[in-house]
Amino acid sequence: MTSSTREHILDVGGRIIHHKGYTATGLQEILHAAGVPKGSFYFYFKSKEDFGLALVDHYRANLAIATRPILEDHSRPPLKRLERFFSWFRDTLAAEGFIKGCPLGNLTQELGDVNPAFRDKLNHALESMIQAVAGQLIEAAARGELSPRLDPENTARFTISAWQGALVRMKAVAGPEPLDNFQTMVFQVLLA
Amino acid sequence: MTSSTREHILDVGGRIIHHKGYTATGLQEILHAAGVPKGSFYFYFKSKEDFGLALVDHYRANLAIATRPILEDHSRPPLKRLERFFSWFRDTLAAEGFIKGCPLGNLTQELGDVNPAFRDKLNHALESMIQAVAGQLIEAAARGELSPRLDPENTARFTISAWQGALVRMKAVAGPEPLDNFQTMVFQVLLA
Repeated sequence: MTSSTREHILDVGGRIIHHKGYTATGLQEILHAAGVPKGSFYFYFKSKEDFGLALVDHYRANLAIATRPILEDHSRPPLKRLERFFSWFRDTLAAEGFIKGCPLGNLTQELGDVNPAFRDKLNHALESMIQAVAGQLIEAAARGELSPRLDPENTARFTISAWQGALVRMKAVAGPEPLDNFQTMVFQVLLA
Repeated sequence: MTSSTREHILDVGGRIIHHKGYTATGLQEILHAAGVPKGSFYFYFKSKEDFGLALVDHYRANLAIATRPILEDHSRPPLKRLERFFSWFRDTLAAEGFIKGCPLGNLTQELGDVNPAFRDKLNHALESMIQAVAGQLIEAAARGELSPRLDPENTARFTISAWQGALVRMKAVAGPEPLDNFQTMVFQVLLA
């Protein structure tokens, strides 16, 4: 058993939980899909909860790796980087058929209230999404490219709320409308 | 067994599911909290799923009854009605300690992808929230009280996204910040 076994269990289990949710996913289902025996799972994780908490870090790390090149692309102005950041999410969701939503938002919705250990970890993860957006807005403001009626920090919080809610609505609509509405309202109205 | 037994099971079960989620709530727990035998439950509902689908209608009807006086208060201008509509939600959530979120949003997040019967019903329920908001914005536009850069229908969709996402974030923050941010950004920035 190598550290890549741990990553493999997180990848495979993370995909199932992303779609079905944490409570609805049994440990047996994760073990079966990952093709690992129970002992291997318990070598890396003390419990299903311990696995779930590690999964928050796993989702967050994957997200940071995938989006860093977009957010740090200094050949583009900050609002354009931000638009590409959300377009990247949209493309990823389109490739899956507009299902599943945000793994961090899903776990927050499901577990935030009922499990303080998850809540803390998810709060930090969502906060890092907010700060990624705020960083671009602060830079845009410094360049005179953000309307002075918009406070960068408040606008970043609101943008992440609107994004998370668009992903909730996407699951009801089963199509791109809420994501397209988000893109239009944020980049052609709110930030324009 | 009277029709009020059915309402009683929906009220009690609805409160548990609102907090813990649909999958995490066992039928036994609902029966115990409602103080009814299993036979009574099955007199009114064919299955847990049948109960869950009836619960969507129950949540939706309760919401409409509670908010109708606010939305139909023609002594106030439409944007003021809309602000009071979301303040009513905030007060309700504050009374509970900023937990649970929107029962319709929660079920959409949990079941929208994985159960088409729920998705259809939840889509209609969220659409009726959107149309309630759109109605006020259309009236505001007709009175010249909505900025011409805002399309009422798109703005209503975006507002409900932002609200649902604020409720997701509320569960991570465990406090009012996301709701206060929503109120400020929607009524002092977007619609101002």
